[in-house]
Amino acid sequence: MNITAEEIWSAVLAIRRKSPVIHNITNYVVMNNTANALLAIGASPVMAHAEEEVAEMVGIASALVINIGTLSPAWVRSMFRASEAARTRKIPIILDPVGAGATAYRTRTARELIRAFSPEIIRGNASEIMALLETNAKTKGVDSTASSDAAVGIGRALHEKCGSVVCISGETDYTVGPAGVIKTLNGHILMTRVTGLGCTASALCGAFAAVTADPAVAAAEAMAVMGIAGEIAFARSEGPGSLQLHFLDALHRLSADDIKRLLKIEVVE
Amino acid sequence: MNITAEEIWSAVLAIRRKSPVIHNITNYVVMNNTANALLAIGASPVMAHAEEEVAEMVGIASALVINIGTLSPAWVRSMFRASEAARTRKIPIILDPVGAGATAYRTRTARELIRAFSPEIIRGNASEIMALLETNAKTKGVDSTASSDAAVGIGRALHEKCGSVVCISGETDYTVGPAGVIKTLNGHILMTRVTGLGCTASALCGAFAAVTADPAVAAAEAMAVMGIAGEIAFARSEGPGSLQLHFLDALHRLSADDIKRLLKIEVVE
Amino acid sequence: MNITAEEIWSAVLAIRRKSPVIHNITNYVVMNNTANALLAIGASPVMAHAEEEVAEMVGIASALVINIGTLSPAWVRSMFRASEAARTRKIPIILDPVGAGATAYRTRTARELIRAFSPEIIRGNASEIMALLETNAKTKGVDSTASSDAAVGIGRALHEKCGSVVCISGETDYTVGPAGVIKTLNGHILMTRVTGLGCTASALCGAFAAVTADPAVAAAEAMAVMGIAGEIAFARSEGPGSLQLHFLDALHRLSADDIKRLLKIEVVE
Repeated sequence: MNITAEEIWSAVLAIRRKSPVIHNITNYVVMNNTANALLAIGASPVMAHAEEEVAEMVGIASALVINIGTLSPAWVRSMFRASEAARTRKIPIILDPVGAGATAYRTRTARELIRAFSPEIIRGNASEIMALLETNAKTKGVDSTASSDAAVGIGRALHEKCGSVVCISGETDYTVGPAGVIKTLNGHILMTRVTGLGCTASALCGAFAAVTADPAVAAAEAMAVMGIAGEIAFARSEGPGSLQLHFLDALHRLSADDIKRLLKIEVVE
Repeated sequence: MNITAEEIWSAVLAIRRKSPVIHNITNYVVMNNTANALLAIGASPVMAHAEEEVAEMVGIASALVINIGTLSPAWVRSMFRASEAARTRKIPIILDPVGAGATAYRTRTARELIRAFSPEIIRGNASEIMALLETNAKTKGVDSTASSDAAVGIGRALHEKCGSVVCISGETDYTVGPAGVIKTLNGHILMTRVTGLGCTASALCGAFAAVTADPAVAAAEAMAVMGIAGEIAFARSEGPGSLQLHFLDALHRLSADDIKRLLKIEVVE
Repeated sequence: MNITAEEIWSAVLAIRRKSPVIHNITNYVVMNNTANALLAIGASPVMAHAEEEVAEMVGIASALVINIGTLSPAWVRSMFRASEAARTRKIPIILDPVGAGATAYRTRTARELIRAFSPEIIRGNASEIMALLETNAKTKGVDSTASSDAAVGIGRALHEKCGSVVCISGETDYTVGPAGVIKTLNGHILMTRVTGLGCTASALCGAFAAVTADPAVAAAEAMAVMGIAGEIAFARSEGPGSLQLHFLDALHRLSADDIKRLLKIEVVE
């Protein structure tokens, strides 16, 4: 397994050319940003959460992104119904277990979704991923408290247990798949001061999974593009408000040269 | 029928002076942008969706904007209740049938609202408007797939069927009313890469309908102002992130001269 | 009672150092901004509204912010459940009665929350605060219609009735507590053209209340920091779109010198 700047750029071009519909059942806080990031990279976002329509909406989508950031029983039912439809249609499911470990309800819901559907990609921060496996990790809200380095073993354990590619975001992003671990080292710490950039990363996993057969490669592509756009944005920003704006502009203007110049990726087989 | 830059400017001044309350029952994705755009043009946005209060909230509003972008049964009930109150109070109703054609639930809900209330203005993209009439158009999510030119005949058919002014957004915006068709040619393609600018257009239809007696004129005024602010914003933008920001600034700073200088409108009787 | 620039700066440093978790049950329109403002000042926002988890989420929070801007019965139940948990854990409750007076449902809900829990801080505009006491004030949507000067007596009456610190936002912000009235005179009128900055003010009350023992001092600190960041942002803005961005940047970059240079505060005992 090896991922080059050229391959990432090819995937970006494929997204721009095909404009895949990405169906998001996500949290209220980030819906706007998520939709804007998907549009900026070239995909077609759809947000729909009613049980009455989610299965049908999955029918026109190329990937399903489930994010439990502001869950409630009706939304959980729709997450299951949409996931069933995604399995029937054989489109990839990406799960973002926001706040898993912070409350039993979130941990339980994320685990049930994983058990029922083995999502192609699970993306979260280290403490969320830890919470999916064990009960002694306590999440501080939706922020990460465990070091990513420590969590990579947990990612491997979760991958082995459920078969999903597990992507752990942090200063370094670790993508754990059947062929090994991909480290992406792009990004900037100020990105953690903008709400929902983790959720955006999961949505971009959906966009890349819609055009890339291997979910591990798709997740690593998404992490690299997130981080590169974040670095370009940071260089022009004076704080988290301007970072959010420049991030969307950078996604939209992303070039082959940006990726070649900035990509920091390591594959550990 | 004729619409001059001076008349559009008078309507903008009327909005700024009266600051009409616009009651929005809209989707989660765009609530923030919609409220900000209404504030930027000078109106007073209200968002309320509970059955317990929508009728009373309509009581202080000058227009009601219904947007089905993230609908669910409780919200649909409130849309009906609010629309009944709007009819009793004789304030204009604007309907944005987001994603009609993408799922049966959306198509059915939009059609039922039209049948029950004949909104003063229905605004959508070409494929959404087509879905309100016929069943053989399949929407690709919430984006437009039909050309606006082809859809103007459909707009006329829908107008004749339900009596509503029908406004079809696209590269050219067509507003079909009893006195003919108004084409507005302002805007920029980058606006389609910012989520919810169509929803903003519908909300601005509400603001203009609150100060303009003729719904066809109100819709065309809103389309012209959207497009002009979008062009001003585009000239200063480096991508969709900055476009969204400059768009709000441009709405807020809009001048008589901007409208006179940039307006591109044609009335086809 | 006296509040100096040094004390406000100490509170900002305490927020940045402790990064207190602030649990928000707030409205759909402002969730994103609210979370971003809390991150920008250095706090850790959490949004959670399901009855299944709110009590547990309160368990990791240092303050609870309740905002009734887009309420519905399920959310109201969660507001009560979360408030009970906040009382058990003895963390401060901040109530933002958005739109109280506009509908009976909002007025009633806000009054019931006050009666049941006597929040540490109630923050609203003048007409919202008036609606909590008397029935003859009619709110125009969620904007202020009563002058803040006239409302300060009402604030005092509400404070005496329920014991809560009452903070009335306007051109001058009045914080009414047991030791008298604190006036903060910072801010800029353009802030009223950005949706949800009042809600952000309430969320910042939560952040300051998490690190400041006296709720009146905490509320005045939050008002001062809001206003100062707003003034810094306004100086760089060309409209409400850019103001929102620069406001977040200013919160993030806020320095001791900014506060010393700009603070306008008066304590009336």
